[in-house]
Amino acid sequence: MPDNTSDCVRHVNGRAPMHLNYHRKYCGKIQAVIFDMTGTLVDFGAKANGQALQQLFNQYQIQLPPDTLLAVADLPDLAQLKYLFAIESIKDQWQQHQGSLPDEKQLEQLNIQLRTQQIVCASQQLSLPVDSKTVFQFIRKQGYKVGVCTHYCRDIASDLIPQLAEEGIKIDHWVSAADVSQPRPAPHLALTCAVALDILSVSACVKVDDSLKGIEEGLNAGMWTIGTAISGEYNNRSINEWNQLSNTERDKIRSEATLSLYRAGAHYVVDTISDIQSCLEDIEARLKRGERP
Amino acid sequence: MPDNTSDCVRHVNGRAPMHLNYHRKYCGKIQAVIFDMTGTLVDFGAKANGQALQQLFNQYQIQLPPDTLLAVADLPDLAQLKYLFAIESIKDQWQQHQGSLPDEKQLEQLNIQLRTQQIVCASQQLSLPVDSKTVFQFIRKQGYKVGVCTHYCRDIASDLIPQLAEEGIKIDHWVSAADVSQPRPAPHLALTCAVALDILSVSACVKVDDSLKGIEEGLNAGMWTIGTAISGEYNNRSINEWNQLSNTERDKIRSEATLSLYRAGAHYVVDTISDIQSCLEDIEARLKRGERP
Amino acid sequence: MPDNTSDCVRHVNGRAPMHLNYHRKYCGKIQAVIFDMTGTLVDFGAKANGQALQQLFNQYQIQLPPDTLLAVADLPDLAQLKYLFAIESIKDQWQQHQGSLPDEKQLEQLNIQLRTQQIVCASQQLSLPVDSKTVFQFIRKQGYKVGVCTHYCRDIASDLIPQLAEEGIKIDHWVSAADVSQPRPAPHLALTCAVALDILSVSACVKVDDSLKGIEEGLNAGMWTIGTAISGEYNNRSINEWNQLSNTERDKIRSEATLSLYRAGAHYVVDTISDIQSCLEDIEARLKRGERP
Amino acid sequence: MPDNTSDCVRHVNGRAPMHLNYHRKYCGKIQAVIFDMTGTLVDFGAKANGQALQQLFNQYQIQLPPDTLLAVADLPDLAQLKYLFAIESIKDQWQQHQGSLPDEKQLEQLNIQLRTQQIVCASQQLSLPVDSKTVFQFIRKQGYKVGVCTHYCRDIASDLIPQLAEEGIKIDHWVSAADVSQPRPAPHLALTCAVALDILSVSACVKVDDSLKGIEEGLNAGMWTIGTAISGEYNNRSINEWNQLSNTERDKIRSEATLSLYRAGAHYVVDTISDIQSCLEDIEARLKRGERP
Amino acid sequence: MPDNTSDCVRHVNGRAPMHLNYHRKYCGKIQAVIFDMTGTLVDFGAKANGQALQQLFNQYQIQLPPDTLLAVADLPDLAQLKYLFAIESIKDQWQQHQGSLPDEKQLEQLNIQLRTQQIVCASQQLSLPVDSKTVFQFIRKQGYKVGVCTHYCRDIASDLIPQLAEEGIKIDHWVSAADVSQPRPAPHLALTCAVALDILSVSACVKVDDSLKGIEEGLNAGMWTIGTAISGEYNNRSINEWNQLSNTERDKIRSEATLSLYRAGAHYVVDTISDIQSCLEDIEARLKRGERP
Amino acid sequence: MPDNTSDCVRHVNGRAPMHLNYHRKYCGKIQAVIFDMTGTLVDFGAKANGQALQQLFNQYQIQLPPDTLLAVADLPDLAQLKYLFAIESIKDQWQQHQGSLPDEKQLEQLNIQLRTQQIVCASQQLSLPVDSKTVFQFIRKQGYKVGVCTHYCRDIASDLIPQLAEEGIKIDHWVSAADVSQPRPAPHLALTCAVALDILSVSACVKVDDSLKGIEEGLNAGMWTIGTAISGEYNNRSINEWNQLSNTERDKIRSEATLSLYRAGAHYVVDTISDIQSCLEDIEARLKRGERP
Repeated sequence: MPDNTSDCVRHVNGRAPMHLNYHRKYCGKIQAVIFDMTGTLVDFGAKANGQALQQLFNQYQIQLPPDTLLAVADLPDLAQLKYLFAIESIKDQWQQHQGSLPDEKQLEQLNIQLRTQQIVCASQQLSLPVDSKTVFQFIRKQGYKVGVCTHYCRDIASDLIPQLAEEGIKIDHWVSAADVSQPRPAPHLALTCAVALDILSVSACVKVDDSLKGIEEGLNAGMWTIGTAISGEYNNRSINEWNQLSNTERDKIRSEATLSLYRAGAHYVVDTISDIQSCLEDIEARLKRGERP
Repeated sequence: MPDNTSDCVRHVNGRAPMHLNYHRKYCGKIQAVIFDMTGTLVDFGAKANGQALQQLFNQYQIQLPPDTLLAVADLPDLAQLKYLFAIESIKDQWQQHQGSLPDEKQLEQLNIQLRTQQIVCASQQLSLPVDSKTVFQFIRKQGYKVGVCTHYCRDIASDLIPQLAEEGIKIDHWVSAADVSQPRPAPHLALTCAVALDILSVSACVKVDDSLKGIEEGLNAGMWTIGTAISGEYNNRSINEWNQLSNTERDKIRSEATLSLYRAGAHYVVDTISDIQSCLEDIEARLKRGERP
Repeated sequence: MPDNTSDCVRHVNGRAPMHLNYHRKYCGKIQAVIFDMTGTLVDFGAKANGQALQQLFNQYQIQLPPDTLLAVADLPDLAQLKYLFAIESIKDQWQQHQGSLPDEKQLEQLNIQLRTQQIVCASQQLSLPVDSKTVFQFIRKQGYKVGVCTHYCRDIASDLIPQLAEEGIKIDHWVSAADVSQPRPAPHLALTCAVALDILSVSACVKVDDSLKGIEEGLNAGMWTIGTAISGEYNNRSINEWNQLSNTERDKIRSEATLSLYRAGAHYVVDTISDIQSCLEDIEARLKRGERP
Repeated sequence: MPDNTSDCVRHVNGRAPMHLNYHRKYCGKIQAVIFDMTGTLVDFGAKANGQALQQLFNQYQIQLPPDTLLAVADLPDLAQLKYLFAIESIKDQWQQHQGSLPDEKQLEQLNIQLRTQQIVCASQQLSLPVDSKTVFQFIRKQGYKVGVCTHYCRDIASDLIPQLAEEGIKIDHWVSAADVSQPRPAPHLALTCAVALDILSVSACVKVDDSLKGIEEGLNAGMWTIGTAISGEYNNRSINEWNQLSNTERDKIRSEATLSLYRAGAHYVVDTISDIQSCLEDIEARLKRGERP
Repeated sequence: MPDNTSDCVRHVNGRAPMHLNYHRKYCGKIQAVIFDMTGTLVDFGAKANGQALQQLFNQYQIQLPPDTLLAVADLPDLAQLKYLFAIESIKDQWQQHQGSLPDEKQLEQLNIQLRTQQIVCASQQLSLPVDSKTVFQFIRKQGYKVGVCTHYCRDIASDLIPQLAEEGIKIDHWVSAADVSQPRPAPHLALTCAVALDILSVSACVKVDDSLKGIEEGLNAGMWTIGTAISGEYNNRSINEWNQLSNTERDKIRSEATLSLYRAGAHYVVDTISDIQSCLEDIEARLKRGERP
Repeated sequence: MPDNTSDCVRHVNGRAPMHLNYHRKYCGKIQAVIFDMTGTLVDFGAKANGQALQQLFNQYQIQLPPDTLLAVADLPDLAQLKYLFAIESIKDQWQQHQGSLPDEKQLEQLNIQLRTQQIVCASQQLSLPVDSKTVFQFIRKQGYKVGVCTHYCRDIASDLIPQLAEEGIKIDHWVSAADVSQPRPAPHLALTCAVALDILSVSACVKVDDSLKGIEEGLNAGMWTIGTAISGEYNNRSINEWNQLSNTERDKIRSEATLSLYRAGAHYVVDTISDIQSCLEDIEARLKRGERP
């Protein structure tokens, strides 16, 4: 019997080489778009968390240095407090005004206060004052699932999701930083969300994020990434503050934020989520051509 | 001020194109090797589950058709029973011998019996009679984490893992099909395991599996994949049955299994896990050259 | 503080490898088109220099072999004379008709005569009798800068540039072979011109040339290249001579010239500069896709 | 006559497509290594220029803000002064202490003083206290030419080059920022240097630089690039200051500098020039395989 | 004379490396489409050969096992008989009903009977009941040549070709398995056909086939390949049998056949030849972009 | 039943796109090396055919122009005579010396004389005076098959093959230009030879040739190609004539021949067949890495 199969193929375990090599690539459609929350989907200036912390510590006569607020942005809330109390200048101020440093129990207490404050601040910053209706209609029409990764604790996020739904932003699944063991740039949040959304392939997912670490998270998860340069962490201005800038100032911020996000590896950089439709269309075209994130 | 940055970079939101394009690739070391259990790590012929089902139904005078046993191999156990009771010929036999078909409660009862049977059969097939010591020493020396994805329920897996540890196969984390919402080829098991192993990038993971669907699972998760052609589902023979084959018969099985696994997209195909070291070394070299799974 | 950055990145100085690899590509617009002069932009048959030499030596009763004229085409003018006086047959003729060979001073004298002759011949061949208006309008509209590399000495070129401007061909900068230390295929002329045109990236430049060495010059400079097969050195016929050829003869010349230019590495080959617009458009599309020259 | 050439090749001028496509790549050896001067080849902390400015303005009771010193680092010297006098706070201080702002003539005067100061500071920082002998011996043995691009004015550079030669660093050609019309990241300095070094192809050149803009300059010139993370602008510490840091502090600086340089597109990042030999060897291997910068 | 050519190019025979590397690619048009006959161009269910064999052996009271019919499908006819008479169960039946096994002469006799039967069966299955007119008009309009590779002996094929011509399917050249020394997946049939069609490059050919081995044949010949999933060997049903299936059954068959053909390496998989026009257009676009099969 | 296969794969016939894309590559060993005869394997200067023609016409007092001899080199012998008698100057000479031009019958007569002459000349040039023993021992040891494509008629080739065998060059199969319908650069000879050698894939074949058209033939056949620069058509000198050249003359010829062959697309260029072993080893390495010709 002319068994040509056995002629043309050999196993590779040190005895005989394989004649043929097969390479599989995903070339289907996008299946899910996963958004970061603060700075990307809500809270134009990514300022709510910082404001909440600031206001909490103000009650204790303590002023937080601005760069510290950025440094804790990726941490779950209790970890934020622990991080702050490890900083010398904050420790000193606290001891000066409050006596001894908080113990575990008092930290828990402070954390509860912090969450209350975060809910207030987050609700004030809920809307991202750009047109997101059109892009979410497009996403629904294409049948993409919508995921969210957030650094808010589960309580706050649970509060916000229904409010977003009322504005036409329906989330299929969300994951909180409290659900995973590693903060960004580890891919934990994005992968956990993708599994919950029942995607078929990581190459079928798009991560949208305003922060460098969020872009890295998406890349580490094997996903396409879109950065937002104007809403979010880099700009760190409310929409009103942004509107009061001169064109030159805006161009400078946009250029620097865009370059940073591209250099982190973002496949696309736009101003805000209202600009992502053409990116999603381009990703579809590239997937069809057999390109990968 | 000669702000050349703003000259050479432009944002992409429909107004002005970006001059530069940045592409990031993971080029570090392998971080985790994730093994399928049955047919790959234990149970040379991938026969334990089938035997357990067979023996259970034999108690009720029912003979299961062989191809059915393969068809249920990827399902959690209760789903296996439901699948079988949806098949006409099995329904008929059952009704003939047992009267009415089992209701939900009776199915649960049967499922408990099935698990008992599975533990017996799995323990009999625990050892994969090939040298795995050398390869696991290599894996430990390289610092790779070891994960396992299994289709056994959590009870059985919990039983087996310590027995494997005694043989020198130390598992850092394992996930059961019962933990996820979608069976293979969806990437759920592999991704859940990778997150639990705290890997930095999906490109840093290697999935080792004897089945086509397991290879697809790894590819969908953005991982490297190694197929085992002789141990496992395709061969479906115990080590004794395999040893009694002629060289010609073995070559035919090896060729066909190897070709199937390659065509499913496996990056490497070997006989058993004792052959994977050179594959892991080649993956390291390819990662270093900037290649991706 | 969870400094993930320091986890995921390592320097490469022999101690620890880098996990990530970044690749930057220019994907902006064309910034400059750099034309060869003789045979490409003026002088359809690339014959002016040869005619000038021929006429100069005819005054001394010396007949120059035709292939010699091609051989000196890339040299600055004094070097052309020295090259010719190193050829035995020319030396012999000269000595026979003029007695002793020219010394340095006499060579300088001859060179002055040669330049006068070149200006006459070049002016007669100034126009490239094809439609270049359309293509230069396109170039201006796109905002591309226009450069010229020429093998004429600076005097002659200075004369010709204003005449070209009158015909609608406005040159932003030109460089003469006399300005650089190495003739083509070295990239000196093209790079010097690009720097003077203030281009941002060599990948943003296009070299248009009728000669193999000019194509190589462009490639060595990291630029895109377009060859002209009918105007220029290979054809070496005036427009009138070309028009008198049969279709078969023309096809043969066109095929051979085209193949030679492609084999030298030209990205595109056209008949004359009036055909380059579609090439420039294709280069724009390829740059946008991230392709490089 | 069976003219198969004319069968298989057609010109591309809108009439008939070309059947064949040819692609040329440089695959020879490295021909030149072009070093930035300050922070790369001399002046470990890239502090000389800042010190000179600081000391100059101190004479007029003016304190320069540290980030300003970094901002002017890429400018020719007169432009540095003009840049500083455009800053409000400096203007104010000057007017307060010196009355009216300097006119053109006084600026020239200040510039002469600045140069004197620069020569003093530069000479103090001449040596890069790492082993550069070995690497320059390797470079010479390989036959690579050595170029330097510097932001010092020509006077200072002329002074320094012979001093470097005494230490075994022989420079074949150097170019000053004063020689070109555009500062980095434009490719002007690197290309001008390459032309003067008579290289055959830009792909045969390697740019070594400690600054992001210098890496971009190399990439824009079509060259390979190596960044130095510890010596130079990012660290901005003298060797003594560096040696007094803890390992943790050093790791943090190294990680951040390395990541920045990689993200700017550097092909390799090392600590200092004493680590570049393995990079040069790897570039040779990649050129041979047909890879491009 | 400045012979730069000899500077920039070196031969590679162990003495000096070549500086430059040239790569040629075919980027012209498709020149030929080569069809498999049974299951692709005629005989929707690829059943004629099996029917002929079945009917022949039925005359001798022998029932052939269905999988055997598939196994012989690639063999020339006499080899089919020899293959069958090597199978134990068939030998047994034959001896039981006919006494001794056929000798060479009797085999020849049986072969003649087989051919008669094949002609009958083939003629009954001649038409592929899908619209092939449109696609063959497209093929003619594009100027592609049409080839056929068939496993019928030359007599039968000679009979069928004119009948196809009557239906508008004009074949420029056909080759029979009897003409070559190796059956598929060896590339013999496809290459022999391509040579006879006077194609310029194997990359300019497209093989259309319903079987895995036929797809492999095309790939081995360096050609583009299109698989037909519904007509042909995998489905193995007549058009009537197919029409009577439920949508679910059809989807299952289509999915499995499509996946098998893709995994064998087919560049495209369609239902039947009536769907290939868009594939041919896509191949043209890919050839133009410089892609290869 | 959770039939994930049908979820993840869709056929492509205009209704639903395929999610996955599979790409197959040959990565086995070289299977055959196919040599051109004249100028590559025998007849160092590729002069035998020209000498035979010259001597034939000399008998009739006719001098053939040298470039004509090169032009006919790819034609079967009768076609050579017809080609020559279509040239005006030859017609004139013939009519002047012999009266009327030869009719078909006389041409046949002349052709017989030509073959006799060719046998004489070919035998005189049989040996390629370089060491081919080592390379043919390597080829045999590797198990590569050896093919030959020749432009000699079958009579002459039949004569020469046994003589080569005596020198240790054993040919497995040879094909004459008389066997195919199209001369080079069509791939007919190479493909016909490969089929006769029973190769599995065109990517497993290497064509070795001294002429541009032979290199193109190999590329058109989808094969790897090696050009010989010193033996063969370009040099067109006997080994004695070559040995009498100065080093400068040899370098010039080698450079030009090498560049021509590379530009035609040759993957490798060497001096003579005695240098091809390292090329074959490099092709093996590239095949293993998944590269294609």
